[in-house]
Formats: sequence, C-alpha cells, structure tokens
Amino acid sequence: MNLILLKPDEANNGGLPGADVRAVHIRDVLRAKAGDTVCVGVASGQRGTALLLGISTAQISWEIAWEKTTPSPFPLRLLVGLPRPQTARKILLECASLGFAEIHFFNAEKGDPAYAQSSLWHGGETKDLLHKAAAQAFTTLVPILARHASLDEALQRVAPAATEGNTRRVFLDIYEAGEALDKTLYAASSILIAIGPERGWSATERNTLRGAGFAGAHMGEHVLRVETACVAAGAIALAALGQWQRHGTR
Amino acid sequence: MNLILLKPDEANNGGLPGADVRAVHIRDVLRAKAGDTVCVGVASGQRGTALLLGISTAQISWEIAWEKTTPSPFPLRLLVGLPRPQTARKILLECASLGFAEIHFFNAEKGDPAYAQSSLWHGGETKDLLHKAAAQAFTTLVPILARHASLDEALQRVAPAATEGNTRRVFLDIYEAGEALDKTLYAASSILIAIGPERGWSATERNTLRGAGFAGAHMGEHVLRVETACVAAGAIALAALGQWQRHGTR
Repeated sequence: MNLILLKPDEANNGGLPGADVRAVHIRDVLRAKAGDTVCVGVASGQRGTALLLGISTAQISWEIAWEKTTPSPFPLRLLVGLPRPQTARKILLECASLGFAEIHFFNAEKGDPAYAQSSLWHGGETKDLLHKAAAQAFTTLVPILARHASLDEALQRVAPAATEGNTRRVFLDIYEAGEALDKTLYAASSILIAIGPERGWSATERNTLRGAGFAGAHMGEHVLRVETACVAAGAIALAALGQWQRHGTR
Repeated sequence: MNLILLKPDEANNGGLPGADVRAVHIRDVLRAKAGDTVCVGVASGQRGTALLLGISTAQISWEIAWEKTTPSPFPLRLLVGLPRPQTARKILLECASLGFAEIHFFNAEKGDPAYAQSSLWHGGETKDLLHKAAAQAFTTLVPILARHASLDEALQRVAPAATEGNTRRVFLDIYEAGEALDKTLYAASSILIAIGPERGWSATERNTLRGAGFAGAHMGEHVLRVETACVAAGAIALAALGQWQRHGTR
C-alpha cells in the first residue's frame, strides 16, 4: 500500500476509523506517529499529503493538503475474453497497476461460461483488487470494469465507430496476424486492445473484430498466457502513446 | 503443454516411458492415438513433429521429423534482485515464456537474504518451472538461470565490459531515472535489463550500475510489482530488438 486510497465520500472526513484496514496499515506497518505525513489519494481523483494529527486504535485524524491537478486516465482500454477467475484476478491487478483506463471482459466463444458464476464477479472483490492495485502503483487511477455477454455486445458498448476518433483498435492473434504489435500502434492517440481467451479466438470473432475496424497484431511466436499478454501489450501500448514521457515533467 | 519438451538425452529414445508426465499428457489430455502427430522439441534445440507409433500405459513410441533450423536465443538478459520465492516463481515462468535468454538473480542490499534459503533454490523446481514455461510458450528456448551473492558479483559474471559489444545496459529506476525505457533502447543489438528488489535500489547499487555502464530508465510514474516490471520491460526490449519481426518470416 504505497498510497492510502480513499473513496470520494471519505475524502473530507478528516481521518479514518481506527479499525479500517488502511488505518491499521498506517499504525502497524508504516508505524506513523502524529506529526508524520502519509500519501493519500481519492479514487479517480487527486492525490494529497495527509498530516497526521492524532493516531489511536479508535481513530486516525489528519489534515490533507491536496495536489492541484487531478491525473487523467491513460487513453488505453482492454477487451479480454473472460478467463478462469484466478487469471482474471491477475489481469485486474496487473492491468490496474499499469494504468488501463477500462477493462472489459466478454464471454468468448471458446471460453467457459461457468467462469462468470465465480464469486469473484458477485461481490466486492473486483473493486477491492482494483483499489489495491492502484494503491500499490501509487496512483488514484482506478480502471472502469465491465463484463459483457459476448464480443458483439462488448463492441457495441466499447467501440461505437462514431465516437472513436483516432483510436487504434488491435486484436492480438498469434496465428493469423502478420504485423508485430509495436509496428501497428505508431501515432495513436488512444488504443483499444482485444485479447482472446485461453483457447483463442473463433473464426466468427476474428471476422467480427475485423469488421469493427480492429487490425490483427502479434507479439512474436511465443504462446503467452493471457495475463502475460495483457501486461506485455499494455506496456507496448503505453510506450506507443508516449504516456511514459510525462514522468517527471509535471 | 503446447510443446512436448525433451531433454537432449531423451531426443533419440524413440519415445517416452508410459508413466512420464508428458506421456500421460499425450494419452489423457491430448487423447492422441497411434498415427496422430504431436509437436516435440529439445530444450535449447530443434523442434520436430512426432508421429505416434504406439501408445500404452507402459510406453509411448514415436518417430520424429526434426525441423532443419535450431532457434537462436533472443539477445535479452535479465538481472533482478532476489525476491520472495513466490515472486521468483512468477518471474521464472513469465520471463521464460517471453524468451529471456538469461535470468540472473542477485542478493540486493534492500533484499532479504533469507529468500535464498527457500526450497525453490535447492531442488529441481526452477528447472521444472523454466521447462514448463517454454513448453507452454511453444518454444525450445529455455533461459539460463543463475544466482549471485551480490550485484557486484553478478556484474562481474554477466556484464564484463570487454565482451559486451553493443549491448545496451539499462536499470529500471522510477525515482531517479530521467528517460523512458522505450526511448533508451533504439538500435540496440542486445539488451541487459537490471531490475531492483521489491524495496528498490540502494544508493551504492545505483552507483555500481552507473559505473558499469548502465543507464537509468523508467516506465512512467506507476510503481509496479517486480514481476509486472519484468514482463513490461521484457516486452519493450523484445520490440526494440525487432525480435517480433521474425514471426512468420521463417
């Protein structure tokens, strides 16, 4: 927990209840004392520096000096075939830490519909994972998460042509793509990456993607696990967007 | 297991013992029958197509048609601070699947020496992990793995200036680096990436790396877990090396 991440409605409470996991972290891991400062941030909002006024098992109170600027989400979105829950957890953590603005799972033709029944998708776990990853990454940028019943439904919601502007749309395809991912992303102002499920794309899905303006791209000959492909493609996309150039220039 | 990976001394045995995990995979997962073919490869050697002649619980026999060419290791090496064993396992699996030629762990000043006592490092597990990752990635390229007592020792063994040619040496440093990783790797023919331990580099290690010709580089402002940074940096490096361009051109 590099950043104490707050929900918007917690930002102006002047502190945290003593039993809150973040309060416990400040007390027992950071071992902070009154007068120390800790880095805080509001999910999808500003970061700030909290001056600790009082620390007890009942309550942590602070005064926060907020940064002037609110970071903008990176123009990078992921569309990925719904994988087994354990793989989905890795994708949520790693893609949130990299800074994907949106993560969209869809039921793929070669996927297993049973994955959607996992407890992962029916409680607060996904939000906790995304917040945990953002806090570790020291960012307030928490990805928007959505699930869709099919690739078609996902594309209707995620990639309506009329609103796309100069978004580059690519789908990873080790078997049929002729061009390397890094060569397809030059000069993009926004990137939407589609990655298939563990068993790969169906012929119908490939045609659907091409029809929706997605170009096939590969990352060489090695067959990567879905979560590894998400991180590798995300890094290539963030570099292509020039996103990393901003570091230290603020 | 996309590829049945064989040790060199198994390549010409004409098959596998029936109880071997790979034989079980061929029988029970692939459900292959005599007359079917399966993809095989020799660790650090050629791939081939095995025509199954006989399948029983006692023995699998085949005749292998070997490919003419042996793939060359990618000119990409990793130097990483020894992390907790569970993180090391992820690094081994993911970096092997991406195609790092060498993975070197070193005891970092801010690392925990106790990590080196893990059973991970005192048995066959690391080799099994590397072979598993290569088989899943459908490659015979298995990284060379080594551990070093310190960064100094690692550099003496890994990066002797006299033999480096035009290798680009970079170390990831989110706090002090001024340039983005992708901007530092243009026109490199070989890349050596150094990544610190979870708690980061010490001032001494930073000076040692700079003295050894390593340039600092960052991947933006987000604090990434070590295993995520390894995959992200590996992808940027493989793209910079043009390694992915070879796909489909053989």
